[in-house]
Amino acid sequence: MAGHKPWGGRFTQPTDAMVEAFTSSIEDDKNIAMEDVEGSIAHATMLGEAGIISAADAETLVLGLEAVRGELLAGTFPWDTALEDVHMNVERRLAIHVGDEVAGRLHTGRSRNDQVALDSRLYLRRRLKEIEGHLLALERALVAKAEAHVDTLMPGYTHLQRGQPVRLAHHLLAYREMFSRDRGRVQDALRRVAVSPLGAGALAGTPHPIRRERVAELLGFSGVTTNSMDTVASRDHFLESMSASAISMVHLSRLAEELVMWSSAEFGFIEIGDAFTTGSSMMPQKKNPDVAELVRGKAGRVVGDLVALLTTVKALPLTYNRDLQEDKPPLYDSLNTWSSSLEITARMIPEVKFRVDRLQVALRKGFVTATELADHLVTRGVPFRDAHGVVGRIVGYCVAEDKVLEDLDLMTLRRFSPDFGDDALEWLDVERAVERRDLPGAPARARVVAALAAAKAELA
Amino acid sequence: MAGHKPWGGRFTQPTDAMVEAFTSSIEDDKNIAMEDVEGSIAHATMLGEAGIISAADAETLVLGLEAVRGELLAGTFPWDTALEDVHMNVERRLAIHVGDEVAGRLHTGRSRNDQVALDSRLYLRRRLKEIEGHLLALERALVAKAEAHVDTLMPGYTHLQRGQPVRLAHHLLAYREMFSRDRGRVQDALRRVAVSPLGAGALAGTPHPIRRERVAELLGFSGVTTNSMDTVASRDHFLESMSASAISMVHLSRLAEELVMWSSAEFGFIEIGDAFTTGSSMMPQKKNPDVAELVRGKAGRVVGDLVALLTTVKALPLTYNRDLQEDKPPLYDSLNTWSSSLEITARMIPEVKFRVDRLQVALRKGFVTATELADHLVTRGVPFRDAHGVVGRIVGYCVAEDKVLEDLDLMTLRRFSPDFGDDALEWLDVERAVERRDLPGAPARARVVAALAAAKAELA
Amino acid sequence: MAGHKPWGGRFTQPTDAMVEAFTSSIEDDKNIAMEDVEGSIAHATMLGEAGIISAADAETLVLGLEAVRGELLAGTFPWDTALEDVHMNVERRLAIHVGDEVAGRLHTGRSRNDQVALDSRLYLRRRLKEIEGHLLALERALVAKAEAHVDTLMPGYTHLQRGQPVRLAHHLLAYREMFSRDRGRVQDALRRVAVSPLGAGALAGTPHPIRRERVAELLGFSGVTTNSMDTVASRDHFLESMSASAISMVHLSRLAEELVMWSSAEFGFIEIGDAFTTGSSMMPQKKNPDVAELVRGKAGRVVGDLVALLTTVKALPLTYNRDLQEDKPPLYDSLNTWSSSLEITARMIPEVKFRVDRLQVALRKGFVTATELADHLVTRGVPFRDAHGVVGRIVGYCVAEDKVLEDLDLMTLRRFSPDFGDDALEWLDVERAVERRDLPGAPARARVVAALAAAKAELA
Amino acid sequence: MAGHKPWGGRFTQPTDAMVEAFTSSIEDDKNIAMEDVEGSIAHATMLGEAGIISAADAETLVLGLEAVRGELLAGTFPWDTALEDVHMNVERRLAIHVGDEVAGRLHTGRSRNDQVALDSRLYLRRRLKEIEGHLLALERALVAKAEAHVDTLMPGYTHLQRGQPVRLAHHLLAYREMFSRDRGRVQDALRRVAVSPLGAGALAGTPHPIRRERVAELLGFSGVTTNSMDTVASRDHFLESMSASAISMVHLSRLAEELVMWSSAEFGFIEIGDAFTTGSSMMPQKKNPDVAELVRGKAGRVVGDLVALLTTVKALPLTYNRDLQEDKPPLYDSLNTWSSSLEITARMIPEVKFRVDRLQVALRKGFVTATELADHLVTRGVPFRDAHGVVGRIVGYCVAEDKVLEDLDLMTLRRFSPDFGDDALEWLDVERAVERRDLPGAPARARVVAALAAAKAELA
Repeated sequence: MAGHKPWGGRFTQPTDAMVEAFTSSIEDDKNIAMEDVEGSIAHATMLGEAGIISAADAETLVLGLEAVRGELLAGTFPWDTALEDVHMNVERRLAIHVGDEVAGRLHTGRSRNDQVALDSRLYLRRRLKEIEGHLLALERALVAKAEAHVDTLMPGYTHLQRGQPVRLAHHLLAYREMFSRDRGRVQDALRRVAVSPLGAGALAGTPHPIRRERVAELLGFSGVTTNSMDTVASRDHFLESMSASAISMVHLSRLAEELVMWSSAEFGFIEIGDAFTTGSSMMPQKKNPDVAELVRGKAGRVVGDLVALLTTVKALPLTYNRDLQEDKPPLYDSLNTWSSSLEITARMIPEVKFRVDRLQVALRKGFVTATELADHLVTRGVPFRDAHGVVGRIVGYCVAEDKVLEDLDLMTLRRFSPDFGDDALEWLDVERAVERRDLPGAPARARVVAALAAAKAELA
Repeated sequence: MAGHKPWGGRFTQPTDAMVEAFTSSIEDDKNIAMEDVEGSIAHATMLGEAGIISAADAETLVLGLEAVRGELLAGTFPWDTALEDVHMNVERRLAIHVGDEVAGRLHTGRSRNDQVALDSRLYLRRRLKEIEGHLLALERALVAKAEAHVDTLMPGYTHLQRGQPVRLAHHLLAYREMFSRDRGRVQDALRRVAVSPLGAGALAGTPHPIRRERVAELLGFSGVTTNSMDTVASRDHFLESMSASAISMVHLSRLAEELVMWSSAEFGFIEIGDAFTTGSSMMPQKKNPDVAELVRGKAGRVVGDLVALLTTVKALPLTYNRDLQEDKPPLYDSLNTWSSSLEITARMIPEVKFRVDRLQVALRKGFVTATELADHLVTRGVPFRDAHGVVGRIVGYCVAEDKVLEDLDLMTLRRFSPDFGDDALEWLDVERAVERRDLPGAPARARVVAALAAAKAELA
Repeated sequence: MAGHKPWGGRFTQPTDAMVEAFTSSIEDDKNIAMEDVEGSIAHATMLGEAGIISAADAETLVLGLEAVRGELLAGTFPWDTALEDVHMNVERRLAIHVGDEVAGRLHTGRSRNDQVALDSRLYLRRRLKEIEGHLLALERALVAKAEAHVDTLMPGYTHLQRGQPVRLAHHLLAYREMFSRDRGRVQDALRRVAVSPLGAGALAGTPHPIRRERVAELLGFSGVTTNSMDTVASRDHFLESMSASAISMVHLSRLAEELVMWSSAEFGFIEIGDAFTTGSSMMPQKKNPDVAELVRGKAGRVVGDLVALLTTVKALPLTYNRDLQEDKPPLYDSLNTWSSSLEITARMIPEVKFRVDRLQVALRKGFVTATELADHLVTRGVPFRDAHGVVGRIVGYCVAEDKVLEDLDLMTLRRFSPDFGDDALEWLDVERAVERRDLPGAPARARVVAALAAAKAELA
Repeated sequence: MAGHKPWGGRFTQPTDAMVEAFTSSIEDDKNIAMEDVEGSIAHATMLGEAGIISAADAETLVLGLEAVRGELLAGTFPWDTALEDVHMNVERRLAIHVGDEVAGRLHTGRSRNDQVALDSRLYLRRRLKEIEGHLLALERALVAKAEAHVDTLMPGYTHLQRGQPVRLAHHLLAYREMFSRDRGRVQDALRRVAVSPLGAGALAGTPHPIRRERVAELLGFSGVTTNSMDTVASRDHFLESMSASAISMVHLSRLAEELVMWSSAEFGFIEIGDAFTTGSSMMPQKKNPDVAELVRGKAGRVVGDLVALLTTVKALPLTYNRDLQEDKPPLYDSLNTWSSSLEITARMIPEVKFRVDRLQVALRKGFVTATELADHLVTRGVPFRDAHGVVGRIVGYCVAEDKVLEDLDLMTLRRFSPDFGDDALEWLDVERAVERRDLPGAPARARVVAALAAAKAELA
């Protein structure tokens, strides 16, 4: 007999021991123990208010659940892995506090399926809000660093080739934009998460006259789910959150890539503080940007988590299938990785020291004002395509002669085109080049200052 | 010399022929030719309004572009694959219509990078709106089918085991909920898509005094992007749309799985119309649910598309890198697959004929009222866990004796527990069982009728 | 100062506490502690043999390492999470056993990079061999079950529609083939895994005259890796193993899908033993095929693991980058999941009881001999395409009249074609239909018996 | 009626037009038209030899098929997209050449399922062999470039930080190793691909006495598949090939990443020939490593292809399901991308010119001999951990003072440790440092020369 199970009635043989281990989710689900208690308190409260159980029983249950919560917080909760899952652990512990009979009433009008659906929504809401906070912190760190570098110029890159001069602040604010949109996705996901599933039962609701909206209200949800079968079968709120996580981790990986490259001797654009780097047990000179590398690498992990759940849910018929127990390991891993990666990056950014001298050298040697020179010719009436060709040949000459544009004099320029004006050399000034880009979203000083102000207002 | 290229100035050797083929995106990008023209018309209009080019030139450009649009619509546009991409094709064609000199002015204040960014946003907006329409159509088809089956009962399943009785309408509306949320994600994605990138230039804006907001307005966008480097470097609006696609295709795959299973001889719950099935060249009896199978299979394809782009973008430094040319094949494939899968499913649903007789047989043989019997005992004062055990043993007895619950008489029930009341057998009535589940989101008739009404109001 | 680190010399500030946690791999790496000791024993032995350290020191090191191994086996090893990783834990523990000075000599000619490369190859070899064993066990279980059902006929399916009759043994042996090829992939992967990386150093080898081949020999490897930079940078041996895992889990998911469907009331082809099913806390009648569902669901997880590492490794420059620390969580998860899923499926198969009566009913009602009837017409000179059409119309007639082919008499058949011979009805015999398929790999009895014999010989 | 279809008998309504388009695979499958003909020639030959059809018919069929092949080669084959797939196109065209009656006999003993299985195995074999050739060509290109740079020293990197000096040849040969293993995986995959599926029929073989081994022999296969259901249901030979593709593309992405980084102004280690780079339409100075970027980006695409098929096949019951039509788009895309990326990289490598001068500068400034200095102290009796600490402090001093190790004199060194010997400065010589690493697989000259010789022997 599997009679010690809550479902053992029709079974005549015990569960295989390896099956117990294989089907157990208890290690994964410890994460949601607090939410399990929180949801049960709301449920018990509603049961009492609705007269489904007595007011005294409701109060006893709530007090008992609060005792369990205290044990969880204090780390004294006695986990029993022989019990199938976290819900059974909490339930049994509650029974010790309030007795079997009253504890048994907590399950009135509730099934394991809608109970776990509630716990996971509460969990997801908590984590998404925490992540929203980390995104804000990271955006603030980027804004602060940008603010310090409004007047630091550097090459903007395409194809990892120096392209045109920009402000370092502008470069940093590009990432701020990405994380700001990530935050928007978190908020959108939260809207679809924060509805109460309780009352969906195993799949078809419950015969008890429970008050679904009241539970939602007690838990701070905006409403209730609207189809019981959908409620226990669907995982798109997980998938949406994990998609947002994957996209955001890809953003972090891009920033991390730049930090790693900028830390190289060849770029030498930054030094990351000792607290965020590590050394080598063999090579004494090494100061490695490990945190950035790990953040970059963890993007893969989170993409994998998303794929795992998409693949698991694919082609499952309604409603609940046990496959869905595999939803939580990737969800937890995705959120944990995202959250810690955001947090540590937000803490690392202030410790990134930019080498302004190196950025200036890079500006000088990168032909970043070649476009300006072409634009100068355009102002002199040369069609852009022709001007582009002239300057292309000048660059080719410089490369062959190991020169930079700033080394050239007017006479040399005019060997390539008679149309260069007397002020041609002034167009090689990077500051001026940046300032000519005076549009919303462009790197001219006033525009960057405005962008900073707007960002700060949004983040305030 | 690579001098025929728009960038050949500094090059002394021609591009390798295989490189031409390898780097060409023209086949992929024909999709966005119309958007390229549309964006150029807005740009030209703005250039004229802002006095950056003459009003006459602006008008000439718009007329020329409209001529190109006409050729594209008529299928007479002469594609030249020797030209690198779609933009160059359009540009050269425009030059034939309006002359090189005026055509050349269209590129004022615009780079290929922000031009393609605009085209892809226009494209994405068009496709997402089309998909929104298909989602609506599918929801309507499900609602219509549900409306016809408010009074058809069937087993609700968990673990593919018959669980509790529900209304077929309720089951179908569960999918309606999923597609409704998918639609919400489309709308959220559209908000982030519908901002104008034009003016970001190659990466750092443009020195020309263009009016970015005016272009946005002409194109019906809600505003402009706020950082030029982010604008040309980021693809999260693609990734978000493709995530929504993957999630929604997973929803479709679940519905498709049910259609395939229900079409089997063993389930026999449905017959799909001839128009949506195919036969076998070898087995004359076969009538295969091919469309449903293909939809189910295509979920994998769209998950793959998402992974492709997430992986491609991972760890790319700012700003544009040529890797990003690989963004469009998965984007197009994802949207095409999603759009056609939605559309064909919406058309197939009306052609699905439910076999009500078979559903009724399934109800009778599935022990779907076992929970009711336990609930009956609870009303007689038996704790739920005990009642569950009693009924579990009754089911075990039935399985051993090859009986169903409806075969049992009261005396037999009482052999398992003396607590069964005189009305115990009434609890085996499935209609009554469903009606007892009278909560928001549950399958009682009134609730399903209300859900239908709400859905219809939303879809109106 | 980060002076307590093995690399702290050039650092002036301590590592951030969150950074310690973020960069720690100790929890993941406990898996390879035994391999770390095993590799160190081989290294110490070689160092002594080569005279790089004294024979006495070598002996002391080996004894100390064996003491550590004993503690690990006994579960008494005192893990210190403050130490960065498993290697440092083992090293410090060794120092307690043999003193700092001798313990320090173990690191001679070895870097952390090649040490961890060795540990992970030893680990992977051990797990792949274990998995090979589980594959063999599963194949044997399938063969044993097939052997019991050589004479059980059932419908073979395409599109989940009944197609042609086959032997149940034949169906089960189809899975045996898949797992046999999976085993081939494991063996191929093992060839590329079982080479010794020790001596690659941090990236450029070591100045000490170590004997790489001797370490390989002591560890039972077939040879040594042939490029030090490749050795510390590459992870394709992980990726290959994880690909094999993903493919094999997809095979398992297909078998699991069938077990789940066959367990449904609608199919009713099997009953899975109580030990491998679980019930429902709400619905007393439920007997759910949880193990099969979980195995099916876990396929997603393992696909996700593969994606995680592919994405992480993408675009990493040589040689080691810290991103690669993210290699082991997906590797471990992939192998653990694969191994346990194989093992539990191998144990479940004997507990699957086929309902031969239900399979026979399915045969009768599925038009599975329709192809035979067409073949009969072909023997009478009717072109196959025409014969196919005739039988298609007969099937259509049966569906409309709710009949099966076996209900028809010769006269009825001849209404559809005068070419039906007097023996036409004999072609509707399923046994005969199967026996006509008498080719290598086909389901005729003798062929299946031969396939069973071949499988048993291979698995002996 | 769907009577024009080869399966229309039991159908009364025509296929929906959108369904025709949705289910058509003709565009994807044009790739395998040649293989379809090749397989049919072998089948027809065998049918004649076995006396299943007359020798005259067999000859007519072979001649007709050769005529079709000629049309395909000449590009004059008249594709008709109204016909469902490539097989039907070939079949109809054959009928025009040889008449309906004889053409109809080709299908004897063959089903569409095993026919397409054969075509795809022939296709896969052809492409894998082609890819094997590209891998060899790439390995040869790397070996040739390495041979030219045996005496070019450069920093070896970990964490993108300069670590220890190596030979450029050694660095390049690291990639040769990766592609050599990729080639091993191709060969392993080929073993499992090159078996003949013909005779598996729709799922259960065929009643005709065909000679499966003879077809295998005619096609150069090593044998036949051993279970008909497995044969039509399985796709692990696709998945294995696509896994090999994904792993190999990840290797290419790493090489591409280095080429991109080395092309940057900051590294400046290489110049890629004009034929393999492109410019910018806006920035005249740009010379972008587009080919390397695209190869890097395409790694994502191929990972996506693999995920697509793994996800599609997950949880499909036996045998053929229409979902499997979705197998070929990702297969084709994966192989096309891999093949062209290998080929273009092999062609690009000779056009990569290394800037030896820049590599030398990098060596000098990277503290790459710090490990040597520590090793020197070890030879003077200082424990390695202590030596490491001393050198770490020296490096810290250099960083603070903006010096390199080569700037220091002996007196300065001795301020950090009195143990530095008179020959300490000699240990800073990079050539000597590399030569001390004289082990199999290490970068000492003799070892690299030996590795080159071994590689050339293998590739000969």
